[in-house]
Amino acid sequence: MKDVAGMEIPGFDDVLAAEARIRPYIHRTPVLTSSHLNALTGAELFFKCENFQKAGAFKVRGACNAVFGLDEAQAARGVATHSSGNHALSLAYAAGRRGIPCHVVMPHTAPEAKKEAVRGYGGVITECEPSTSSREAVFAGVATRTGAEFVHPYNDPRVIAGQATCSRELLEQVEGLDTVIAPIGGGGMVSGTCLTVSSIAPGVDVFAAEPKAADDAFRSLRAGHIIADDAPETVADGLKVPLKDLTWHFVSRHVTDILTAEEDQIIAAMKLVWKRMKIVMEPSSAVPLAVILANPGLFRGRRIGVVVTGGNVDLDRLPWMKG
Amino acid sequence: MKDVAGMEIPGFDDVLAAEARIRPYIHRTPVLTSSHLNALTGAELFFKCENFQKAGAFKVRGACNAVFGLDEAQAARGVATHSSGNHALSLAYAAGRRGIPCHVVMPHTAPEAKKEAVRGYGGVITECEPSTSSREAVFAGVATRTGAEFVHPYNDPRVIAGQATCSRELLEQVEGLDTVIAPIGGGGMVSGTCLTVSSIAPGVDVFAAEPKAADDAFRSLRAGHIIADDAPETVADGLKVPLKDLTWHFVSRHVTDILTAEEDQIIAAMKLVWKRMKIVMEPSSAVPLAVILANPGLFRGRRIGVVVTGGNVDLDRLPWMKG
Repeated sequence: MKDVAGMEIPGFDDVLAAEARIRPYIHRTPVLTSSHLNALTGAELFFKCENFQKAGAFKVRGACNAVFGLDEAQAARGVATHSSGNHALSLAYAAGRRGIPCHVVMPHTAPEAKKEAVRGYGGVITECEPSTSSREAVFAGVATRTGAEFVHPYNDPRVIAGQATCSRELLEQVEGLDTVIAPIGGGGMVSGTCLTVSSIAPGVDVFAAEPKAADDAFRSLRAGHIIADDAPETVADGLKVPLKDLTWHFVSRHVTDILTAEEDQIIAAMKLVWKRMKIVMEPSSAVPLAVILANPGLFRGRRIGVVVTGGNVDLDRLPWMKG
Repeated sequence: MKDVAGMEIPGFDDVLAAEARIRPYIHRTPVLTSSHLNALTGAELFFKCENFQKAGAFKVRGACNAVFGLDEAQAARGVATHSSGNHALSLAYAAGRRGIPCHVVMPHTAPEAKKEAVRGYGGVITECEPSTSSREAVFAGVATRTGAEFVHPYNDPRVIAGQATCSRELLEQVEGLDTVIAPIGGGGMVSGTCLTVSSIAPGVDVFAAEPKAADDAFRSLRAGHIIADDAPETVADGLKVPLKDLTWHFVSRHVTDILTAEEDQIIAAMKLVWKRMKIVMEPSSAVPLAVILANPGLFRGRRIGVVVTGGNVDLDRLPWMKG
């Protein structure tokens, strides 16, 4: 780690430490290919399948790195976060594996299935109102009462070092990649990818893919500073959150470009992968393929690692079945 | 091959020949595990993922073995079959790879998506009325006109030898299996499994899993002769067809038992796999897990190879969304 302007910036040594630390608790996920999608895009696509990861998403890498890096005294007080998505699930999984408490603050309006999944991994849920002020107040109360360690979903050097192990594996699994593309929301996965790629494969382009309907990272990169939108609406519900200082550090320095896709392109790409590759991926995970299909000239002939970030979807409400 | 009562019975030498013949055209599919499903069943389950196979199903193994085993003169006249399912798709794929014609007789009522998929692989469709008499008459006309070689979906020694390569791979990929379980319809996959297992791993149990709503193989095994039902209705639409003499040969001699599952158990098992394993499997492929979940005492403690036969489903009509 090096300290820059008050932030701890994780380095590649932190990635190697994370890799060793989390290995017993995560899957080395497979890389799948599809001759149909290669023919369709004119590129060679290598899908890094974090949808097959423990707890169903890459987020378990960062969560495990944070949880298993705690000293005994900190660990005994547990960990805490506010999230209704994959980070909550992953942190509960990681804490469960270490046998320590995990507190999750979640709006009472969150889907029952998500609450059950967190509880299934042993997480303790404290409900709040669906507003930022209520969430912050309730979370502060939980933190004070329990002394639990806050693990932010992405703006945390331990989390970014953990996510960086994904592209480290990908670069080992596939020789000669010239491009990696991942979805961007808060920027945790993209930051981890930038950290690994800039350290061990600096000639490889890193593209970030974002829903047009929640394109705050796209606009941030062009503006040269973080732009945070207020609750954008997109089918890619993992990508609604804004960049923060630590992820901005990596994104602004190392990302080749951020490209966007329309909602219908995201849904079509998701369905195409389900149909042709026979894997269940989240809408967020389909944004990179949507972007590749929408920009054929840019990606043709490239050898591209595509990060499939997760597979946690509500099978009763698939986006192509709405309306 | 040995000839028994007028039938050519494939032997293990035919399986080895098939393996060498089809290798360039098929995937060696991965084997996936799920700690959640292991905990739920008390067994160790190894899912052989033929849903990731070329054309989306194991049927491409038998189809490729038939197509690439033809001599040049036969091959020039092409191949033909009647099927509206995975066999038609697979035969079209195989013929396309060899560059020979493939004729498929299909009822005009078959879903447009299935017709498009066959045409997508270069198959030529001749439509018939949705009745057995029309299908047979139209097929006879096509066969006479083209001189194409008929490749039956399962009652064909070349097809069974091809399907047998699947469990051959599975036994190589997973050490110490004591059980293999596969769905049974016409019995092609189960016959191939019996052929391989009885030849190289005779201590391993072979179970067949069948929908209760189409349990003709179950009743055949108990009666000691083939019972063929007239068009049974089940969500597992790949399993409606009856045993024939060649598959009965293997099933009656080598299957440990046939077990059945209710429709709601099949749908629940399918959804469970999608949700937990993040893979798209057909209803037919879910019958083995449904049977394992319905018979916990029988399977607990076993180390089980589970054949996931295919992943070709209509994503707009998922069975848990009906009604």
